Amino acid sequence: MLLNRAKLLASPAANSVFTTVLTRGPVVRPEIARITGLSSAAVTKAVKPMIEAGYLEELPQGPRIVEGAGRPAHPLAVRADREFFVGIKATADELIGVVTDLRAQVRAAHRIPVTDRSAAQVVRDIAALVAELTPVHAERTHHIGVSVSGDVDRRGGVVRYSPFLGWRDVPLAELVAAATGLTVTVENDVKALTVAEQWFGEGVGADSFALATVGVGIGCALVVNGRLVAGGYGVAGEIGHIPVAAGNGPECHCGARGCVESIASEEAIVARARHAAGDPDLDMAGAIDRAHGGDAAVRAVFDEAGEAIGLGLAAMVNLVGPERVVVSGEGLAAYDLFEEQIRAAFTTQAFGAAARCPLIVRPLPWEEWARGAAAVSIQSLFAA
Amino acid sequence: MLLNRAKLLASPAANSVFTTVLTRGPVVRPEIARITGLSSAAVTKAVKPMIEAGYLEELPQGPRIVEGAGRPAHPLAVRADREFFVGIKATADELIGVVTDLRAQVRAAHRIPVTDRSAAQVVRDIAALVAELTPVHAERTHHIGVSVSGDVDRRGGVVRYSPFLGWRDVPLAELVAAATGLTVTVENDVKALTVAEQWFGEGVGADSFALATVGVGIGCALVVNGRLVAGGYGVAGEIGHIPVAAGNGPECHCGARGCVESIASEEAIVARARHAAGDPDLDMAGAIDRAHGGDAAVRAVFDEAGEAIGLGLAAMVNLVGPERVVVSGEGLAAYDLFEEQIRAAFTTQAFGAAARCPLIVRPLPWEEWARGAAAVSIQSLFAA
Repeated sequence: MLLNRAKLLASPAANSVFTTVLTRGPVVRPEIARITGLSSAAVTKAVKPMIEAGYLEELPQGPRIVEGAGRPAHPLAVRADREFFVGIKATADELIGVVTDLRAQVRAAHRIPVTDRSAAQVVRDIAALVAELTPVHAERTHHIGVSVSGDVDRRGGVVRYSPFLGWRDVPLAELVAAATGLTVTVENDVKALTVAEQWFGEGVGADSFALATVGVGIGCALVVNGRLVAGGYGVAGEIGHIPVAAGNGPECHCGARGCVESIASEEAIVARARHAAGDPDLDMAGAIDRAHGGDAAVRAVFDEAGEAIGLGLAAMVNLVGPERVVVSGEGLAAYDLFEEQIRAAFTTQAFGAAARCPLIVRPLPWEEWARGAAAVSIQSLFAA
Repeated sequence: MLLNRAKLLASPAANSVFTTVLTRGPVVRPEIARITGLSSAAVTKAVKPMIEAGYLEELPQGPRIVEGAGRPAHPLAVRADREFFVGIKATADELIGVVTDLRAQVRAAHRIPVTDRSAAQVVRDIAALVAELTPVHAERTHHIGVSVSGDVDRRGGVVRYSPFLGWRDVPLAELVAAATGLTVTVENDVKALTVAEQWFGEGVGADSFALATVGVGIGCALVVNGRLVAGGYGVAGEIGHIPVAAGNGPECHCGARGCVESIASEEAIVARARHAAGDPDLDMAGAIDRAHGGDAAVRAVFDEAGEAIGLGLAAMVNLVGPERVVVSGEGLAAYDLFEEQIRAAFTTQAFGAAARCPLIVRPLPWEEWARGAAAVSIQSLFAA
């Protein structure tokens, strides 16, 4: 029955109306019509079931009165505490969980370690984390979003391939639904983060933007013409597999040569730093320390990584033309070692006016990624 | 007045309705509503001014009757000869012009040489070409599309930068309007070709596709989420400026190093073939002859060009995930020399399921490019 209600709410018009109230509310119906380009009738039709279901509420006649309007206009607002949403980001080492309200504001957060990466155990751990997170709002929590890195079929609810978890073709939505009783949306982690930015963050009001993440891998999700780019074959935003040094670059785990990830992923940086320092036990933290300490050879490894990332970002901006790019991810601990080279390579490679596209650097803790998973769960209510 | 009528017709709904009738017609209103997702009322509202203006016509009750419908349904069709459109593709050497009907079918074609590339002279030549093309349908020809390579601001009607014509900030729409009396749309030539494919060709029904052109430059235009990608700063689809050999590649005319164009543009191929053959007077035709004749060094130049193009296509497909890629352009004369390397590099570099994206090779004579210019002119009537 919940599912049916969700389906009733989900349409392109509902999507526009809800996001408009979310980002501009409290807002009166004629203003929603003006902003969305929908007819008054379409706005009224979309709003009605949302009010009935309690997602929107009519406020007493507010300050935003339309002058000369015949009937008094009641502004509409999102009822943030109407429903709560669980978001979980699954990494190879940890499950990071949050509960958010309908405005994607985090109300609770908790983490548990992953000790066994089998899908069966991770699903049991997800159920335990949900039980930990939801006691306060259990009766108003019906939806969960789970995000993992890799190739995720959101519509089918399947994780097709997640290298860091070692999963292939795991029907995660079905498994988590059975274990938790919640309605499940699964999504690629970077895409989920991008939905959170699009609906609730830097992307609000932008017709196109990109979110790039630097860390274990180099990921990217794109919003173009107002919508997330899904990829005709489920693959999109693979900035990590742009071949910036195809001729003479290192081998990449994907089978090609000279990909951005073969130079700038955490694994690549550590391997190259070990070689540069002559220390086979060096880890990422040690490499960062050495570079900060003035080790020129290790410093050069970060320079090359920064250059590869900057070239990848420029290639993406030259192709897709986003209005802005948010750069984030766990790898930002080393960002001061990268930044100059990232910006220099970006500026050299960006074609003409594309160089005007701002790179906005923003650290995003893991809880923001979990919030992204909650955001796709909220989105699933209103977007067709 | 024409302008006002055009504006009345141009809206997202009008765009959907017109393209639906164009590609599926004759088609009844309820079917249009089903295909477009618009309400019956919205379809009726969008159709009315198009019928009044004569762009659509109601056919007698046709074979496509909706069963059980209350009123008899009259299928709608596009009136192809209601209006004619001029399309001109301007190259550095020639103006190629066509006249099409409302279905973008070519009714007349003519070319004239460009001897003086100054904007003033090219505009005079365009006016002469229009006079040559339009005598038969002059009274039903009110719109012209002009396409050139380079950075074109369609909305502002300005060619910001066209290297092959040597133009900067030329207000081409205004100049051509003054010289011809027609309503002018200017567009980048590859984007125009892509509009023709989207509305009238390979792109019909695809939510995303790419058109890449190989020749003097390496160009690409993208349709993502159903719409052409314009670029937040007017730059998009610059597949020629993906740095596939950033570390050790040749310098590119854009100022960067190792771009696809620095290896695979006609100029780059000729320069590298001259060096390989030790013949400073070799031209493109001569290079193709030598490669076909078994000259291994010149053959290797084409191999490297093909590899660079294949890597660029894969980088684009990894990022944007089109459903299909049309590869075309003047450079197709050498395509048999490229194709194996293009496909091999594409397959190696495409990430996961992205390798399933088909590369469709299609020769497009210059008249098809001129038809693209006419297509943007048709589109300007119905798209907001």
